[in-house]
Amino acid sequence: MTVISVLPGDGVGQEVVPEALRVLDDLGLGLEFDVLDHVNAGAYLATGTALSDDDVDRIRRSDAALFGAIGDPRVTSPDYARGVLLRLRFELDLYVNHRPVSLPAERLSPLKDAKRGAIDCVVVRENSEGLYAGIGGALRQATSHEVALDVEVNTHSGVSRILDYAFGIARSEVCMVDKSNAVPNGGRLWQRCWADARRRHPAMVTRHLYVDAAAMRLVSDPAGFDVIVTNNSYGDILSDLAAELGGGIGIATSVNLNPSTGFGLYEPVHGSAPDLAGRGVANPVAAILCAALMLGDLGHTAEAEAVRAAVARTVEAGRCTPDLGGSLGTAQAGAAIRAELG
Amino acid sequence: MTVISVLPGDGVGQEVVPEALRVLDDLGLGLEFDVLDHVNAGAYLATGTALSDDDVDRIRRSDAALFGAIGDPRVTSPDYARGVLLRLRFELDLYVNHRPVSLPAERLSPLKDAKRGAIDCVVVRENSEGLYAGIGGALRQATSHEVALDVEVNTHSGVSRILDYAFGIARSEVCMVDKSNAVPNGGRLWQRCWADARRRHPAMVTRHLYVDAAAMRLVSDPAGFDVIVTNNSYGDILSDLAAELGGGIGIATSVNLNPSTGFGLYEPVHGSAPDLAGRGVANPVAAILCAALMLGDLGHTAEAEAVRAAVARTVEAGRCTPDLGGSLGTAQAGAAIRAELG
Ligand SMILES: CC(C)[C@H](C(=O)O)[C@@H](O)C(=O)O
Ligand SMILES: CC(C)[C@H](C(=O)O)[C@@H](O)C(=O)O
Repeated sequence: MTVISVLPGDGVGQEVVPEALRVLDDLGLGLEFDVLDHVNAGAYLATGTALSDDDVDRIRRSDAALFGAIGDPRVTSPDYARGVLLRLRFELDLYVNHRPVSLPAERLSPLKDAKRGAIDCVVVRENSEGLYAGIGGALRQATSHEVALDVEVNTHSGVSRILDYAFGIARSEVCMVDKSNAVPNGGRLWQRCWADARRRHPAMVTRHLYVDAAAMRLVSDPAGFDVIVTNNSYGDILSDLAAELGGGIGIATSVNLNPSTGFGLYEPVHGSAPDLAGRGVANPVAAILCAALMLGDLGHTAEAEAVRAAVARTVEAGRCTPDLGGSLGTAQAGAAIRAELG
Repeated sequence: MTVISVLPGDGVGQEVVPEALRVLDDLGLGLEFDVLDHVNAGAYLATGTALSDDDVDRIRRSDAALFGAIGDPRVTSPDYARGVLLRLRFELDLYVNHRPVSLPAERLSPLKDAKRGAIDCVVVRENSEGLYAGIGGALRQATSHEVALDVEVNTHSGVSRILDYAFGIARSEVCMVDKSNAVPNGGRLWQRCWADARRRHPAMVTRHLYVDAAAMRLVSDPAGFDVIVTNNSYGDILSDLAAELGGGIGIATSVNLNPSTGFGLYEPVHGSAPDLAGRGVANPVAAILCAALMLGDLGHTAEAEAVRAAVARTVEAGRCTPDLGGSLGTAQAGAAIRAELG
C-alpha cells in the first residue's frame, strides 16, 4: 500500500491540493492519503506549533508527501516556516530541491524573443544547509544597537552531493552558480568541490556564473541553460525567476528529495498567495503537475505522462485559469484536466 | 580644484573608462584626474596587492572616484575583489549602493508587454554589511570534511540608515525585500527596522516582498517598482536583474555613496566582461552615464543633463554598440556621444 502524506498548508494550498488529489483518485492507483490538515498558520498562531514530532514520524513513514504552500500575512515569525517546511527538509535530509522549468507554449513566455525564451532547464537547489541553517544569534536584541548574525554554512559533503546530483541529471551542461568572488569561505569551498566534481564527470560540458550574472543571463538567454546548480539561497531566487520566465509560477513544480531513500516532498513553487486565497481562482496546475512528478518517481510512469499530457491539452485549448490565458476557476480548471484524462 | 580618482580596473573597464574621461574633458570643467592605472588583476597576480594603503588615501582625498570593473578569469580568489572594491566600500563607508534603472526605449526591453516593461526604478543596495562582511572561517579547510562559515551581519544602524536613504529618494513607493520567513536573525532585525522606518515616514506608500517573489515580480511587473531597498547580497542580484530588464547592463550605472560625506564611487553595473575585453566592442554608455551621475552629484547639473541627452540621442539614432541595436565599436560610440555634445 502506497501512502501519501498530504499537507495543503495555507492560502491557495488549501484550494489546489484537493484538485491534485482528485486527479490522483481518478487514476485508480489505490494510493492512500494521510491528510495532515492541521499543519497551517492557524494552528501555529493558536498553539505555537504547526508540525509536531508525531506529524514528522507519520510523514517519515509515508512513501511521499504532497505539499501545498506555507505562509500567512498574520505570521511574521521565521519560526513558522522553519518549524514546518524547513524542519521536514532538514530532518528527512531532503537535500535536493529539484525545480524543473519548461515553457509549455510560446505565448506564455514574458520575453519578446521566443526562441531564446524557450527555457527548458532544472534548477538544482541545495536544500540542507547554506543560509537556511538557522545558526546565528543576535547581540543586544531588540535594542537600537542590535547586531544580528546568520551563518551561511557550507560543508564539503553537502556541496559535493548536490553537485553530483546535478551532474547525474544533466543532459547537456551543468552551470554552477556561486558568489565566490565576494563571499570568501563558502566561495572557496564551492569552487574546490566544483573542480573535483568536474574531474569526476569529465565528459560533461560545464559553465560557471556568479549569481548576479546568472540572474541576467536567465533573462537574456534562458534557453541556454540545462542544469543550474547552486546553494540554498541563490536556488530559492533563481528558481522563482526561472519559473516566471517559463510560464509563470502557476505551473512550476518542485520536489524536495533525498535521492538515497527516494523520499520526496512535492511542492508547487508558488506560495500561499494570500491575495488570491479563498476566491477559487488559483491555478491548480502546479499542484497537479507536482502529483505527476510524484507518480513518475513512484514508478507510475504512464500515469505521470498521461497527467502531463492532459494538462498540456487543457492549457493549449485555453481551458485554464486567467494566468494561462483562460477564464476558468480552480475547480473548473481541475475538472477540465480530469475530463481530458478520460 | 575638483579631483577625480580614476580606476579603470580590468577587462572592458580599460576600454570604457577612457571614453568617459574624454566626455568629461570635452565639457571643459577643469576636473583633475588622478588615474590609478595599476589597480588591476595583473598587479594582484604579480604582487598579491592591487590596492595599497597609499592608494586608499589618495582616493579618500579626492572628490569622487570613477571605477571601471574588477574581475579576471585568472584570479579565482575572493581576496582580489575584497581587497579593492569591497575595501573601498567598507573603509570609505560607502554604505549606499544606488542603482538606478530606466528603460531608455521600448525596443530595448526584453519583455513582450512594453507598458509593463517600462521599468523606472532605483535599487538601493545596502553596501557595508550583510554577507559581504567577510567574517567567518573554515574548519578542516581543504579536506573532504571541510565546514565553511560566512556570517551575514546585519546591524540596527546599518539597516536603519539604508532604509532612511531609500525613503529619502522615493517618489511613490518603497518596497523592502528580505527573506525574513526563513533567515531568522537578520530577518527579524530588517522587519523591526522596517516597521520603525515606516513610522518615521508615514506618508510614503510601502510594500514588502520576499526576495524570491521580488525576482518574479521584476519580470511580471517591472514598471510597478519605484524604490527597492534590500541587503547587500539580494541587492547585488536584483540590481543586475533590473538592469537586464531596463535595457541591458551595457547602460546600467551605480554609485557607491556615503550620503554624509557626499563621496561617491561611480561604477558601471557590467563587470570586466572578459569575453568582450580587448576587442574594442564594449559599450561605453554605462561608464559615460556614470560620469554624468557623478557630475550631477558634484553640482554640474546642466552638464550631467547634457551628457544624458547626448547619450539618449545616439541610442535613439542607432549610433551605438550592437547590444543597443547599433553597429559601432567602443571608440566610435564614444565619439558619437561627444559629437552630440557639440
Ligand atoms: C565584483 C563583485 C564583488 C561586485 C559585488 O558583488 O558587489 C559586483 O558584482 C558589483 O555588483 O559591484
Ligand atoms: C516559504 C519559504 C521559507 C520557502 C523557501 O525559501 O525555501 C519557499 O520560498 C520555497 O522556495 O519553498
